[in-house]
Amino acid sequence: MPTQFTPPLRDQQFVLHELLKVTDAYKDIPKYADVDADTMNQILEEAGKFCADVLLPINHIGDQQGCKLDNVTHDVKTPDGFKEAYAKYVEAGWGSLTADPVYGGQGLPHLLEIAFFEMQYSTNQAWAMYPGLAHGAFSALEAYGSPEQKATYLHKIVSGEWLGTMCLTEAHCGTDLGLIKTRAVPQPDGSYRLTGNKIFISGGENDLAQNIVHLVLAKLPDAPEGSKGISLFIVPKFIPEGNGVGARNPIYCTGLEHKMGINGSATCQMALEGAQGWIVHEPNKGLQAMFVMMNGARLGVGMQGTGLTEAAYQNAVAYAKDRLQSRSLTGPKAKEKPADPIIVHPDVRRALLTARAYAEGGRAFGYWVALMIDQAHSHPDAEIRKNCDAMLGLMTPIVKAFMTDNGFQSASDCLGVFGGHGYLRDWGMEQLVRDARINLIYEGTNAIQSLDLLGRKILKDNGAALKLFGKEVESFLTQAASNADMIEFAMPMMELGEKLTKVTTGIGMKAMSSADEVGAASVDYLRIVGHLVYGYFWSRMAHIALGKIAEANEAGTAVDPFYTAKLQTARFYFQKLMPEVDSCFARIKNGAGSVMAMEEALF
Amino acid sequence: MPTQFTPPLRDQQFVLHELLKVTDAYKDIPKYADVDADTMNQILEEAGKFCADVLLPINHIGDQQGCKLDNVTHDVKTPDGFKEAYAKYVEAGWGSLTADPVYGGQGLPHLLEIAFFEMQYSTNQAWAMYPGLAHGAFSALEAYGSPEQKATYLHKIVSGEWLGTMCLTEAHCGTDLGLIKTRAVPQPDGSYRLTGNKIFISGGENDLAQNIVHLVLAKLPDAPEGSKGISLFIVPKFIPEGNGVGARNPIYCTGLEHKMGINGSATCQMALEGAQGWIVHEPNKGLQAMFVMMNGARLGVGMQGTGLTEAAYQNAVAYAKDRLQSRSLTGPKAKEKPADPIIVHPDVRRALLTARAYAEGGRAFGYWVALMIDQAHSHPDAEIRKNCDAMLGLMTPIVKAFMTDNGFQSASDCLGVFGGHGYLRDWGMEQLVRDARINLIYEGTNAIQSLDLLGRKILKDNGAALKLFGKEVESFLTQAASNADMIEFAMPMMELGEKLTKVTTGIGMKAMSSADEVGAASVDYLRIVGHLVYGYFWSRMAHIALGKIAEANEAGTAVDPFYTAKLQTARFYFQKLMPEVDSCFARIKNGAGSVMAMEEALF
Repeated sequence: MPTQFTPPLRDQQFVLHELLKVTDAYKDIPKYADVDADTMNQILEEAGKFCADVLLPINHIGDQQGCKLDNVTHDVKTPDGFKEAYAKYVEAGWGSLTADPVYGGQGLPHLLEIAFFEMQYSTNQAWAMYPGLAHGAFSALEAYGSPEQKATYLHKIVSGEWLGTMCLTEAHCGTDLGLIKTRAVPQPDGSYRLTGNKIFISGGENDLAQNIVHLVLAKLPDAPEGSKGISLFIVPKFIPEGNGVGARNPIYCTGLEHKMGINGSATCQMALEGAQGWIVHEPNKGLQAMFVMMNGARLGVGMQGTGLTEAAYQNAVAYAKDRLQSRSLTGPKAKEKPADPIIVHPDVRRALLTARAYAEGGRAFGYWVALMIDQAHSHPDAEIRKNCDAMLGLMTPIVKAFMTDNGFQSASDCLGVFGGHGYLRDWGMEQLVRDARINLIYEGTNAIQSLDLLGRKILKDNGAALKLFGKEVESFLTQAASNADMIEFAMPMMELGEKLTKVTTGIGMKAMSSADEVGAASVDYLRIVGHLVYGYFWSRMAHIALGKIAEANEAGTAVDPFYTAKLQTARFYFQKLMPEVDSCFARIKNGAGSVMAMEEALF
Repeated sequence: MPTQFTPPLRDQQFVLHELLKVTDAYKDIPKYADVDADTMNQILEEAGKFCADVLLPINHIGDQQGCKLDNVTHDVKTPDGFKEAYAKYVEAGWGSLTADPVYGGQGLPHLLEIAFFEMQYSTNQAWAMYPGLAHGAFSALEAYGSPEQKATYLHKIVSGEWLGTMCLTEAHCGTDLGLIKTRAVPQPDGSYRLTGNKIFISGGENDLAQNIVHLVLAKLPDAPEGSKGISLFIVPKFIPEGNGVGARNPIYCTGLEHKMGINGSATCQMALEGAQGWIVHEPNKGLQAMFVMMNGARLGVGMQGTGLTEAAYQNAVAYAKDRLQSRSLTGPKAKEKPADPIIVHPDVRRALLTARAYAEGGRAFGYWVALMIDQAHSHPDAEIRKNCDAMLGLMTPIVKAFMTDNGFQSASDCLGVFGGHGYLRDWGMEQLVRDARINLIYEGTNAIQSLDLLGRKILKDNGAALKLFGKEVESFLTQAASNADMIEFAMPMMELGEKLTKVTTGIGMKAMSSADEVGAASVDYLRIVGHLVYGYFWSRMAHIALGKIAEANEAGTAVDPFYTAKLQTARFYFQKLMPEVDSCFARIKNGAGSVMAMEEALF
């Protein structure tokens, strides 16, 4: 039995229209002012069908088959059905959803793309990485490409005819890109010849698209040492010619990695053998351009965590309702059957509710961030754009790390719901766990994200962005306090906020004596801020649910069970997930000493 | 680069001779009174060589090849090298190490077997399951077999010529064995004919041994409903004849599971087509006999968790010392190199020390439990045997669940140390994670263990066994209090003990209104008790280390760095791992309400 998936349309609509009221927000952004709720809902409905009908059926086979490299031609064959699915994606114009109409896009809000990607990740993360990376390449070129580069590449990427990659990592460096060795030598015609070897290039070679637009980090002959000497180049697989492609450029896939998961995604070793490239942006400022791509990618990876969480939840629920095993601790529930369905057991429920609370919390948070991206890009008010940018900087590492931690934990817990069957490949749960593990690593490991959050985004600006967020939270809680039922959410939030302020100051003080105090605190710190953020969204969602329940009660009509479940999930979040922070605070309080004491030789 | 392994002989000796002083303990047990430290150390040295030289080299290939079933002959081929390794194991007499000399065993303490298994699990968990299950079959037959059954089977199992299995699970029931459908019909000759289907039978068919002794749970025609109507049968693959084997018994492997990990272990679907069997112990008392096997198996599974933790640790340390990436947060350490080895980074150290503290803590705990098994079996004093039995009952679910939780977390964290490389199959880290995941499931899921601990082993006897353990802890702490340096360990232990007593009473009270309060608290509760237990062993180990360091300082000689590292690891345990209990307490305090509230239909 393969995994199943029902697009979470109701919950998506709840987040879009009841929680975030996005169409109101878009009214302030001229190019999105006409986007109405029905349009958004219809698009997501179609998107959900695409994911459930086209992507889900090839997820398991993609995992089992993996990709195959032809060592002579350097061609890569993706698993059965991947190519056909991509053709359908292109044909339906899915790749052009949110791109600028200037390049043939439909000009819709990026938020829709994020919601679509969430469902792609629920159904087939490996497949979704191909178009996902093309979006990244689009963003980087849109932001930093020359007019000529844009004209040459962007239409083709938007239409889906061409795909894109990010070529950063080399065998000896991933996190520390200042160490890269790939060289770019200027040519008389203004182009460059690139020579070097890259690894971990997702989709570096594949049979889905006519051409692949590689964005490659390399060093110029006279480049300064380290990360200040990195430049970005476009290196197309085939040199563009007319409206199509011409000569094959010598950038070849020389090996495919055999991985724990995401087997349908071709993870390529790439050799650049004097490949022709064109510089993007200024020399030695490649990281700046690459970061445009990376920030988008980090939100994408976060949504991979959330998408997998939703998938794990749905499948574990189905199993838990169906599987009969033992009696409820409080006596038989399904007396006519030989045993009760395992959903009666508290720890099974804990696993299910954990995944549910993380999936719904992640959806609320992720869509909110996506809305901010739209505002940061396109809001007419410069002050709002600036604030959104600051908030995005703060939230990006949380999106990436918190969501993917939660995704791995949820997938593993939901596998556990299946008992021994969860360990079998047939049920697809173990694939979710294997796929989920990469999300903690790529696009900057979660440890790196936590350093980015605590070191760069918080301590460096004295917590200004965090305070901005704190004000939003406080203002909501103050407003919501008129409802006495909100106390169970408002109180722990207030407490958490106070503790967080205190611990942030404390780390700042300790950091003066040793920067290792930051490094030793950062992972726990990110988990705490993550819970503050999710706690905020769960408070807001609980507030809406309480309102709807009160409305129905006053009117004497039946309560929509959607709101009952929402409120119950919020309570579960506060009572069973948020308490993770207690251990985090305790560990932070204990400082870096015990982590740093041991000499290297004694390990 | 495959994984590497250095047998942890120094630490094993520390646990055996300095912490547990096992040879003193064995002096009170006549049959082990002559076992000296040198003999034990030599055996473990040889055992370590066997694991490192024979088992480790076939671990990765076993994972990648898996087992193959011939659908016509029902034969199963294990991966390349497995059969040869088993032949070496038999030839060296490893299977007979601890068995009773009456059956051709060497009569050594079981503790040695546990220490040996730990290293087998570090190097090749999948392979080790074959002999591991044979040991289980041996124990069950030794305890409950008739004299004739013992004479027929035990010599062969001890010599390793025959292997054994546990055939419990059926497709519709694993945890809830009362639901099994396999039937055993008595025959005129006193034997039975068994018909039914079993799944998840580890080693159910294989090419390692001449014969396989299946221990099968089945129901007699007149059996009472549920778990009170289960009987245990010996169903050999080949009917024993003379000193060898005769007719093939119709118990066939009809399918192999494709799993997340432990691919070298054949997980078989078995069909019993009127297979001949002989009842073990009394009719309808099969579970009792099976539990002898299961308790041993649970300690074994716990040690799988600990063995994998050690393996993950060793490999991650090697990588962290070798891999150059970024500079230390406090400035360059390896100035002559382009970057520092990643072991300078706090979160890398956190991952390494987590695995180290869990591996060494698990070893201390596991060997202590194994010593108690020896005492429970063979101590001349009935009172001591009784106390050891009570303590074993209490500790078994902790061994099984706490160690395996820790193993999965440690393996995943250590994979993370490798960054993207950890996700590749080549490095072997992802195999450790995949292998580690089953340990949380089989032999009773960790959730089931936690119910066993809290419901049966603690609340049912009003915490008597826990109090017994509490007294041991208290007596040690009181004695150790003479050393002022012990305060950092003694204080948190006292506090934890008090909180645990309080929370236990609290759950007991709540349980009166709903048994679901037990189910909702039990997983967190087991984590707390696990930390109390590990905290106890880490306190004792720190106490020894402090003593040795003081001795050296007084004598003006150099401190053996082994003790420095031991003390530092103890501190890390108390400051960074034990605080997990804070969240557990908070979640327990919040009760079962939010877990149980949601109606099934709303999931």
